[in-house]
Amino acid sequence: MKQKYTIGVVGAGAWGTALAMAFSRAQCEVTLWSLNSGLVEAIETRHENTFRLPGISLNPLIKATTDFQDLKPLDVLVLATPAQKLREFLENYSADISNSTPLVLTSKGIELGSGKLLTEIIPEYLPQNPIAILSGPSFAMDVAKKLPTAVTLATTHLEWGQALTHAFSSQYFRPYYSADMIGAQMGGALKNVLAIASGILQGKGFGENARAALITRGLVEIQRLGVTLGANPETFYGLSGVGDLMLSCYSEQSRNMSLGIQLGHGKVLSNEESPLTEGVYTAASLMILAKKHQVEMPICEAVDHIVNHNGNIETTIERLLSRPLKAE
Amino acid sequence: MKQKYTIGVVGAGAWGTALAMAFSRAQCEVTLWSLNSGLVEAIETRHENTFRLPGISLNPLIKATTDFQDLKPLDVLVLATPAQKLREFLENYSADISNSTPLVLTSKGIELGSGKLLTEIIPEYLPQNPIAILSGPSFAMDVAKKLPTAVTLATTHLEWGQALTHAFSSQYFRPYYSADMIGAQMGGALKNVLAIASGILQGKGFGENARAALITRGLVEIQRLGVTLGANPETFYGLSGVGDLMLSCYSEQSRNMSLGIQLGHGKVLSNEESPLTEGVYTAASLMILAKKHQVEMPICEAVDHIVNHNGNIETTIERLLSRPLKAE
Repeated sequence: MKQKYTIGVVGAGAWGTALAMAFSRAQCEVTLWSLNSGLVEAIETRHENTFRLPGISLNPLIKATTDFQDLKPLDVLVLATPAQKLREFLENYSADISNSTPLVLTSKGIELGSGKLLTEIIPEYLPQNPIAILSGPSFAMDVAKKLPTAVTLATTHLEWGQALTHAFSSQYFRPYYSADMIGAQMGGALKNVLAIASGILQGKGFGENARAALITRGLVEIQRLGVTLGANPETFYGLSGVGDLMLSCYSEQSRNMSLGIQLGHGKVLSNEESPLTEGVYTAASLMILAKKHQVEMPICEAVDHIVNHNGNIETTIERLLSRPLKAE
Repeated sequence: MKQKYTIGVVGAGAWGTALAMAFSRAQCEVTLWSLNSGLVEAIETRHENTFRLPGISLNPLIKATTDFQDLKPLDVLVLATPAQKLREFLENYSADISNSTPLVLTSKGIELGSGKLLTEIIPEYLPQNPIAILSGPSFAMDVAKKLPTAVTLATTHLEWGQALTHAFSSQYFRPYYSADMIGAQMGGALKNVLAIASGILQGKGFGENARAALITRGLVEIQRLGVTLGANPETFYGLSGVGDLMLSCYSEQSRNMSLGIQLGHGKVLSNEESPLTEGVYTAASLMILAKKHQVEMPICEAVDHIVNHNGNIETTIERLLSRPLKAE
């Protein structure tokens, strides 16, 4: 019953590689694609992603290639590029992708400048391909180490989506089907902004009560914007919503939270680290969306103020705390 | 506009004392009641709860007494006894409480044996008094140290409830009004069970993805039972729901989570520590409710199996992980 797909994974970062491992454990045939020939060679010959998941042995059946043509005959393409690199990838390679190849998006973010969701970018280049979102609480290293992981797989293509959840599923990696692609993307993208906020509170020593309150109220903001864009409100309480939010807001493994902690300690943002922390971009993109749809998002706005406009942390938090009391 | 209440706090544990400090900062007159005369003397003379919040200076205006009669003239009684001690308190003292005195419940639990919510116990002794629930993510020490804290104050008495949220509110302690007393109680009680589960996963080294998935799926269980009992589903996404749940599931300050970590490390439960960990009682009480209302709660059931029936951790978790895939 379970279909065995051949899968091409675009991008051999930590997440792309961990996903390749998960799919391979689920008996799929996997090919990782990367332009980094040293990395491809390490995967092909030493069965290890020495750059991004050093010390983790890959199944020797996992192939790697620098040649995009090798992905052409495969059943499914899983896109694991950074969110802000998706458009560039499509510009360069969409001509080599068949219009019937299903695409699974696994990066989290909103395009800087345009405020577009990633599912809005793909159809500009590939208007016909079916798309799914894979999102949820999933550190790459946990997946690589076979620690139990549950994620959301969201697509409006019900039958294909359900076949895919089964095809990707193994004992330690379980996708749950959802029909809400907008909600799954919004949760995954916006949690990065709140993770920065959580880190700032930790760095400033504001305590656990404040952190829990911030995340809870932040979730309401995310949901409010998501629903305006057409998401199902329930999605924000699932794995790709509150699940991923907790993971990112409570673990220093989260790059966004780490950045927040450093900011809380008084560090000034430089251009060198910002490319790694998607939440900085998302905060900016978010403000475009919030303004356009007239949604009040005081917590996300505070983060944007701090990370993108050199806002003072103390006065920004002070202002947040002094907002009038309302019912929940 | 803000009313200045005189408040009696029943129980001078860490939480009762921290609340007394918060109310006092909000300009209320507070009297702590405890039968521990040494503790009462320490508060009265040294302005410190040397037993439960050592090192924290109390406002000298906070009074303490062993004489319950001293609470009689006060405007509001705040009940901060352990949940399983509430009935005993009411048996001994309800005759000394006027039937018009509003009661604010601040303990979290379900009565062992009966499966009753605390708001179902009170009317057996005091059928007329208005009741409110104060719940949410709130470690006592954070409140004591003036770290920002937001909680839910739930009561069906709209006008009084809103007056109370204002009366209790100060710069660092902010109650939000809710009308859902059942939801606020269920969230506060049931999070203790999931905190044990979170600790077990941590103790066993199951990783962060698994923890986030467990809490997310656990929240769905709690909500399912709560809604059956008449709660508003939204309440579980607020401060007294997911807010308190995150706090308890992600901090070793949480007694329930600490217990879970020890269990995960192979410790066997003895009778000495269990009185401190409300979640052990709640897991048992919960099974009565789940059975009675035919609600499926696999995660809470697993915790009950482990803490109350010597269930094997490995096989119990194995069974949880192998449940069939469903949509979220």
